[in-house]
Amino acid sequence: MDDYLVNINGELFLGPEAKISVFDRGFLYGDSIYEATRTFNKKAFRLNLHLDRLFFSAEKIDMPLTYTRKELIAEVEKTISASAHKDASIRIVVTRGTNSEISLNPKFAEKNNLVIFLKPIKPNPSSWLSEGVSMIFHHKSQSLSGAFAKTGNYQENMLAHKAAVEKEAYDAFMVNSDGHITEATTSNAWIIKDNILYTPPLDDGLLGGITRLALIEMSQAQLLPIPLVLKSLSTDDFIKADECFITSTMRNLVPVTKIEGRPVGDGRPGTLTLRLLSLYLDFAHKD
Amino acid sequence: MDDYLVNINGELFLGPEAKISVFDRGFLYGDSIYEATRTFNKKAFRLNLHLDRLFFSAEKIDMPLTYTRKELIAEVEKTISASAHKDASIRIVVTRGTNSEISLNPKFAEKNNLVIFLKPIKPNPSSWLSEGVSMIFHHKSQSLSGAFAKTGNYQENMLAHKAAVEKEAYDAFMVNSDGHITEATTSNAWIIKDNILYTPPLDDGLLGGITRLALIEMSQAQLLPIPLVLKSLSTDDFIKADECFITSTMRNLVPVTKIEGRPVGDGRPGTLTLRLLSLYLDFAHKD
Repeated sequence: MDDYLVNINGELFLGPEAKISVFDRGFLYGDSIYEATRTFNKKAFRLNLHLDRLFFSAEKIDMPLTYTRKELIAEVEKTISASAHKDASIRIVVTRGTNSEISLNPKFAEKNNLVIFLKPIKPNPSSWLSEGVSMIFHHKSQSLSGAFAKTGNYQENMLAHKAAVEKEAYDAFMVNSDGHITEATTSNAWIIKDNILYTPPLDDGLLGGITRLALIEMSQAQLLPIPLVLKSLSTDDFIKADECFITSTMRNLVPVTKIEGRPVGDGRPGTLTLRLLSLYLDFAHKD
Repeated sequence: MDDYLVNINGELFLGPEAKISVFDRGFLYGDSIYEATRTFNKKAFRLNLHLDRLFFSAEKIDMPLTYTRKELIAEVEKTISASAHKDASIRIVVTRGTNSEISLNPKFAEKNNLVIFLKPIKPNPSSWLSEGVSMIFHHKSQSLSGAFAKTGNYQENMLAHKAAVEKEAYDAFMVNSDGHITEATTSNAWIIKDNILYTPPLDDGLLGGITRLALIEMSQAQLLPIPLVLKSLSTDDFIKADECFITSTMRNLVPVTKIEGRPVGDGRPGTLTLRLLSLYLDFAHKD
């Protein structure tokens, strides 16, 4: 944590010094929401879209935001200015606040705690482009209703990710109770089949990623070489795909070349996947 | 939080000074487990049973415990000794630890963080015995698989409790996807019908409370005036019950006299409920 700069309610700390009350509801109950974005040359990428989603998450879990959008932007910018790093990852956490009593009742917390983490971003390992990554499936125990908000309740995703790592895979695709893939533990899921690009619709119970949205926008602007279709997808659709990849703000597009030990297509990062990555990077840098 | 004493990894703090790293996985992901017990005359009530359940929860979420049972007991006792209060509530929280990087991967946390909260216990409001409390139903979005471990993921219970308070009820009974009552947000659920005492079995997806277990033991020792049956119970069973109550270590037995606005039985705390409470208190004090 040495390379992190942390802003807690407007005060800046080095990573190891950044502490929060044990009465914080995020700590006690996972009662928090968050966003993760990055900077390009000291500018936060699509911050307004991330804040839109933060406000949406707050509404979903009925959490009053005691910070305004303007204040949140100011704190993010203050954190970026205080750091020497031009390209950094940024995590914005808002908890319901510090409780005066240990109680589920939210009335015991008066105002939010805001915690912003900044650290220099590492480039993706080059093997991700040359070899791709491998994935497993994780059948979700949670139903869909909570999936749209980006909250501090990440235990199931953590267990899915842990199971993947134990099987020497990179990450897990989450499968909902209808047998549909929703997303990976911290990224969105995509396949290409017969020159059509597919990703699951929000209704299947997933977080609408900002990179996912960018690809949808690019499709609408006719910037993609193949059509994009939002469609519920089964584990079988993924296994039989020609190409597969995941998207996240921090990692852009990552080719998936193996699922549950079986190669996707010819087992190499897909040609179309790599072309989409290159188009996306152009788009993101212009944005 | 002024009246709390907090032990963090062996160091004692007054409530307002008790802080934890924002890289703690409990704060970041709700990646923690906990127990709540109380002291009678400076002795922790059934601490070994609570620690059994803590170890069980750790196993359920695949969390290595870097504290031994002996160390946990020593820290609880140190906290009790440091406080002047004879009757206190105690909350034991164990998180997977402090991450060196923000990542779901648990390898970034080396050892657990242990946080013990102690505060003087308040007696139950006398109205709970004279009037009882009212409840609502909350239909769970989560499935059962996570319900057995006592984790820091309490957002859904918090929302259920919040909905109850907004409807001027005391708390909510959680209903699983089969339509069965599992528990209240922080206590176990019981009804009495035709002189038989019922509570749902663990298989319905609930936390086996220590007070629930005490009543089961009392039944086996023939200390209860009526038979006790573990049985799946519907919302209808609760609405049509003769008597209803909830149990928790901190609150003992609390009569429930109203559910979703309708009186339970004659709308007064049940005669058998009050008798069970008195028998339980005798049992607990002898224990």
